[in-house]
Amino acid sequence: MSAILKQRVRYKPYLDKLKTAQECIPYFKNGQYLGWSGFTGVGAPKVIPDALAQHVEDNNLQGKFGFNLFVGASAGPEESRWATHDMILRRAPHQVGKPIAAAINDGRTQFFDKHLSMFPQDLTYGYYTRDKENDLLDITIIEATAITDDGSIVPGPAVGGSPEMISVSDKIIIEVNTRTPSFEGLHDIDMPINPPNRPPLPYTSVDQKSGVTSIKVDPSRVLAIVESTKADVVPPNTPSDEMSKAIANHLIEFFEDEVRAGRLPRNLHPLQSGIGNIANAVIEGLADSSFKNLTVWTEVLQDSFLDFFENGALDYATATSVRLTEAGFEKFFKNWDLFSKKLCLRSQVTSNAPEIIRRLGVIAMNTPVEVDIYAHANSTNVSGSKMLHGIGGSGDFLRNAKLSIMHTPSARPSKTDKTGISCIVPFASHVDQTEHDLDIVVTDQGLADLRGLSPKERAKVIIDKCAHPDYKPILLDYLERAEFYAKKRKTLHEPHILKDAFKMHLNHEYHGTMKIDNWDKVF
Amino acid sequence: MSAILKQRVRYKPYLDKLKTAQECIPYFKNGQYLGWSGFTGVGAPKVIPDALAQHVEDNNLQGKFGFNLFVGASAGPEESRWATHDMILRRAPHQVGKPIAAAINDGRTQFFDKHLSMFPQDLTYGYYTRDKENDLLDITIIEATAITDDGSIVPGPAVGGSPEMISVSDKIIIEVNTRTPSFEGLHDIDMPINPPNRPPLPYTSVDQKSGVTSIKVDPSRVLAIVESTKADVVPPNTPSDEMSKAIANHLIEFFEDEVRAGRLPRNLHPLQSGIGNIANAVIEGLADSSFKNLTVWTEVLQDSFLDFFENGALDYATATSVRLTEAGFEKFFKNWDLFSKKLCLRSQVTSNAPEIIRRLGVIAMNTPVEVDIYAHANSTNVSGSKMLHGIGGSGDFLRNAKLSIMHTPSARPSKTDKTGISCIVPFASHVDQTEHDLDIVVTDQGLADLRGLSPKERAKVIIDKCAHPDYKPILLDYLERAEFYAKKRKTLHEPHILKDAFKMHLNHEYHGTMKIDNWDKVF
Repeated sequence: MSAILKQRVRYKPYLDKLKTAQECIPYFKNGQYLGWSGFTGVGAPKVIPDALAQHVEDNNLQGKFGFNLFVGASAGPEESRWATHDMILRRAPHQVGKPIAAAINDGRTQFFDKHLSMFPQDLTYGYYTRDKENDLLDITIIEATAITDDGSIVPGPAVGGSPEMISVSDKIIIEVNTRTPSFEGLHDIDMPINPPNRPPLPYTSVDQKSGVTSIKVDPSRVLAIVESTKADVVPPNTPSDEMSKAIANHLIEFFEDEVRAGRLPRNLHPLQSGIGNIANAVIEGLADSSFKNLTVWTEVLQDSFLDFFENGALDYATATSVRLTEAGFEKFFKNWDLFSKKLCLRSQVTSNAPEIIRRLGVIAMNTPVEVDIYAHANSTNVSGSKMLHGIGGSGDFLRNAKLSIMHTPSARPSKTDKTGISCIVPFASHVDQTEHDLDIVVTDQGLADLRGLSPKERAKVIIDKCAHPDYKPILLDYLERAEFYAKKRKTLHEPHILKDAFKMHLNHEYHGTMKIDNWDKVF
Repeated sequence: MSAILKQRVRYKPYLDKLKTAQECIPYFKNGQYLGWSGFTGVGAPKVIPDALAQHVEDNNLQGKFGFNLFVGASAGPEESRWATHDMILRRAPHQVGKPIAAAINDGRTQFFDKHLSMFPQDLTYGYYTRDKENDLLDITIIEATAITDDGSIVPGPAVGGSPEMISVSDKIIIEVNTRTPSFEGLHDIDMPINPPNRPPLPYTSVDQKSGVTSIKVDPSRVLAIVESTKADVVPPNTPSDEMSKAIANHLIEFFEDEVRAGRLPRNLHPLQSGIGNIANAVIEGLADSSFKNLTVWTEVLQDSFLDFFENGALDYATATSVRLTEAGFEKFFKNWDLFSKKLCLRSQVTSNAPEIIRRLGVIAMNTPVEVDIYAHANSTNVSGSKMLHGIGGSGDFLRNAKLSIMHTPSARPSKTDKTGISCIVPFASHVDQTEHDLDIVVTDQGLADLRGLSPKERAKVIIDKCAHPDYKPILLDYLERAEFYAKKRKTLHEPHILKDAFKMHLNHEYHGTMKIDNWDKVF
């Protein structure tokens, strides 16, 4: 037993349950329902999942040792290893990792994506264990960075759905990570209380806290604790580029206009921002702008937020996970006194709560696969069928924000054409966010302000401001033909020609580019 | 001045502003932005809209005297008269009335439908008046049934978006309806407070109240008061039939199962129910069931709820409008002492608040145009283009409820085929509610419980339990072909063949029935 483990585990009876990951293998049976801590690739269990994967490799148990696996959002590379060995029978609500997506799109893993605010509560309602006798998760494996005097768990860089999983788990195994410093003091936990007795979430500002800094556990349900010295591995952030900087500039100009018009205060409203190079460019752009005293209410914080804090423009940020690279975590812990006063991690049910997002008037910004001319957005399925990662928190935020913003490149390369995929399409091949939810669509080409516009007006503005020049004439042609067609039929509210609605997608599938040359083409 | 008017208007300075509807005409100018009270066809202004329509008729002003019109939801027949005379340039967020839908689908009225909880707050943010110099509604016409000592307005059978409209209106005209009894004591008003200073909505039970019973007004902005003796006209309720009773039976059986499984208490959770014969059948079914001490948190109450109260199964109901027939209102006022203790009308921002719907764990039930095999639902646009009424509150409720239920006939008649339209389709021709939102789909054929299922599993259950027998083989054929197609392409998450996805719709358009006989058919 390492000295640091002894120091971190302040509830001594747990030390009697200390096991190696290897020793935990017998607890696991094919077909069980498991919960894992973790959110956006950090804070997930590592050494037990690895031991189980090794067990499958060593004993050729592929296809005979699978689990129904629930994680707040995505876990780390250990999960990809599970997917490679067909260890994931069922999975929700969000995932990242090529082998996992491959298992889903091959039909080997049954996946459903669910709003991240809703998933943990549906789990506590028993919705995802309704075919099980005892209605519970069999085992939740949770990573801790410390254990308090009463046996409560201090998570690491993610809170996620752990409070809910623990509340409905038959058994719990704790991986105490002693490689990372303790995150104690950074969390603010809401334990689940179900309707009809649920009280309001009291938060009226980004920095308000419940004061609960660890996750309460019934110690009798703790099967084992295991020491882990494995670090989270976060790939380097995608740097901003010309395209993403163009989007950021359009957005900052728009925010300035909104302030001038009196619709936003000088320090804007709490920001929600996703992952990826556009999100990074927006954060960089804001850090360099004249906006000060900004705040953030979001689900995940990345390296770019550390610079945002350091340059003084950001006053406070809250999320459910802090997903930093190794260099990021180093900086984070070196400046712990600064960051721990300006940052807190909450349950994902709270970070993504419609209640708070609406109350605070959050500005939500997310990247879709594609947006259609009437402002329906596809966040999840390429060509309507192929799962990327899941809806994540995009619906939680975009449906409730004061300003709901989708940012996307105007076009992406296909295999044979540099601009072979238009991100503005006639009809989204999968709809996750509806026309009733989006206020602003912005691309490298420009920004479309859709507030108060009818569908036909929206289509004109989106094509004019957002579409790539290669696609403007094609999309305008679709719209004009659809209006002509709908005029005769008196269906002019949201004009479509259903037989042509997906022809840009089909042209890409059969001819490698969305640049269709003739709408009468048959596929 | 009638004695009853004098009695109802307790703030005497208003009596100096008493005018006839005719005398108000000069206040109105072509192109103005107007707010009207009203929700689901009741509580809207009547005599001034009629006078303005008469003015247009008498002076042939069609097309020269139009307005940007905002109503909480739908208004009464006066609005249809406006639509007939091209008096509605722009309209949001929801409407009912053939001439209004015709104007929208002819392209004469620019309409946008918006979640009913979101519409009033977006109005107060200035989103819908952003092109106007003073950022305000020019005039709000509001129906009152009494005026308090300080000039506040006691609405009639609807609160709707009136508090927000009044808060952002340059001028206000009050129609005091003296034909109906006063509704004083039935309302519970939340006046708008915008982010970043918005407090939590405090309600933790259906009967909890703020205690504010009238809408605060700045008397200096009141242009005129007008006496109205015109009644609301609500068409008779569509009675339940065999189809709707079959749906209700499936649902009640499901509720009983949920109680047995411990996922719902014996008195269920607060119910939300829409309008129409299925909703009526469900309410009738619940009234005849063994469930007692039920509660309702919804947006509109119909005649069927009065029986529900009287038979003793319903303890309390709250909504933003009470939409009763003449006979219903008669009963209501005869039993005022009973009903006024068990019922309250709130602002639509509150009745439809995600915050409360989630907190209370509401059971939401709504009727779509169509649902697809993966559980995306179309609530608004027939064949993707033709507007019916708007999304209304369906999104507010289904996205946040504990149980999100869509109920629909399995098939509807087309012009030439008794079952020519399947309400279960391969791909919804318009998506308002996504697969991430629906738990249960139920038709006269049966009930599909989708909780925790992957898209392919959902498709099998929906086709098996919900599709009309005429369409089961067609839909299964689509699914199997799509799975085959997606297997090759490794896109097996939500298998679609985009070129065939709308062919059932196209077959209906070109051949009068969705019963497609050959998927290779070209349209």
